[in-house]
Amino acid sequence: MAQLARVQSFGVSQDGVGAGENQSTDQPFGDGVDPADLHGWRFGTASWPGRADSGGNRGLDDYLMHDYDRNIGAEIMGRNKFGPVRGPWPDHEWQGWWGEDPPFHTPVFVLTHHERPSLTLGDTTFHFIDASPAEALAEARAAADGKDVRIGGGVSTVREFLDADLIDTMHVAVSPITFGKGLRLWNSPQDLEDRFFIDTLPSLSGVTHHLLWRR
Amino acid sequence: MAQLARVQSFGVSQDGVGAGENQSTDQPFGDGVDPADLHGWRFGTASWPGRADSGGNRGLDDYLMHDYDRNIGAEIMGRNKFGPVRGPWPDHEWQGWWGEDPPFHTPVFVLTHHERPSLTLGDTTFHFIDASPAEALAEARAAADGKDVRIGGGVSTVREFLDADLIDTMHVAVSPITFGKGLRLWNSPQDLEDRFFIDTLPSLSGVTHHLLWRR
Repeated sequence: MAQLARVQSFGVSQDGVGAGENQSTDQPFGDGVDPADLHGWRFGTASWPGRADSGGNRGLDDYLMHDYDRNIGAEIMGRNKFGPVRGPWPDHEWQGWWGEDPPFHTPVFVLTHHERPSLTLGDTTFHFIDASPAEALAEARAAADGKDVRIGGGVSTVREFLDADLIDTMHVAVSPITFGKGLRLWNSPQDLEDRFFIDTLPSLSGVTHHLLWRR
Repeated sequence: MAQLARVQSFGVSQDGVGAGENQSTDQPFGDGVDPADLHGWRFGTASWPGRADSGGNRGLDDYLMHDYDRNIGAEIMGRNKFGPVRGPWPDHEWQGWWGEDPPFHTPVFVLTHHERPSLTLGDTTFHFIDASPAEALAEARAAADGKDVRIGGGVSTVREFLDADLIDTMHVAVSPITFGKGLRLWNSPQDLEDRFFIDTLPSLSGVTHHLLWRR
């Protein structure tokens, strides 16, 4: 069974923006982008871990919500998804955005030019590597215990893996909002249709899900 | 966590037909209906167990293919889905359509007015019960080890459970074919929109998937 490189539950706006400029501790998604703008569809699903009641959407949003970590054995993320610090690490006190029990539950490879010791929080271990996309993918596959590797983002990281033609499947959720500026995954999904088949799937929540797989 | 009653991967035509009249050993889906007419979309997916190569559709069809048995702990089926014998069992030699290793892998409750001893094939055990939909669902839930119960069909069985308002979610795959006659699940999905939310999702294969969940 092939080990796929998959993008899952990647949220962008109608105009393809996945994050604003100037990400910082106070605004993890950068200028003008509230996480709920792009990820709010997940909070309405029956599978959302934070739900208190037994209701919620059980349609496509929910299928994709609970499919996020199916058969995933490792993740690769850019440094900005780990945290807002840029350049050399001043120390190792910053342990990332993700709290004491990060939602990955696998090895996570953080791409950075500034290595530091691996960090285990809950059942997630972050490894900091200075590697090309192809090298990082080889390392993540070896750590994934035969399972797939999630390319976790952010935008720049997904684009690097697309440019290197290393992505096998993508699930991108387009929310009904337009930003006009910011970090852009694409102008439209059709940018990728020379290389990928695309299912374009409108859900009742107003989000349109795009599932892409290699031609 | 609630134990849902779920219809999964139920195939019908544009005009809502899930099987023809006169099912028999030679034509399990009845007059004029070839299984591939309604279920061919599954054979094209990457997850189809019979695939020899590593290709195949990895879009929505594939998500729904591999979601078929996620969190399912028991199935309920009508007698016609077990086999073509009608009335009292002449003997117990007929072991169903499903071969020596049926694809259910859970307890299966077969609704029939003619009980017979339980039958284990592979890791599937068929129980034959003379019960109302509500009684059968209670029995299946007790056997499902906390998981959901799949209402497996055929058409008449799904309709009985809908009439008793016992279904929580449905995935119905509408194939681009019209039969004009046969056993009909619905005239259109809108028949159910008073009770269910509906995501209507066209896939590249030509099949339109409908995901329904209770309002």
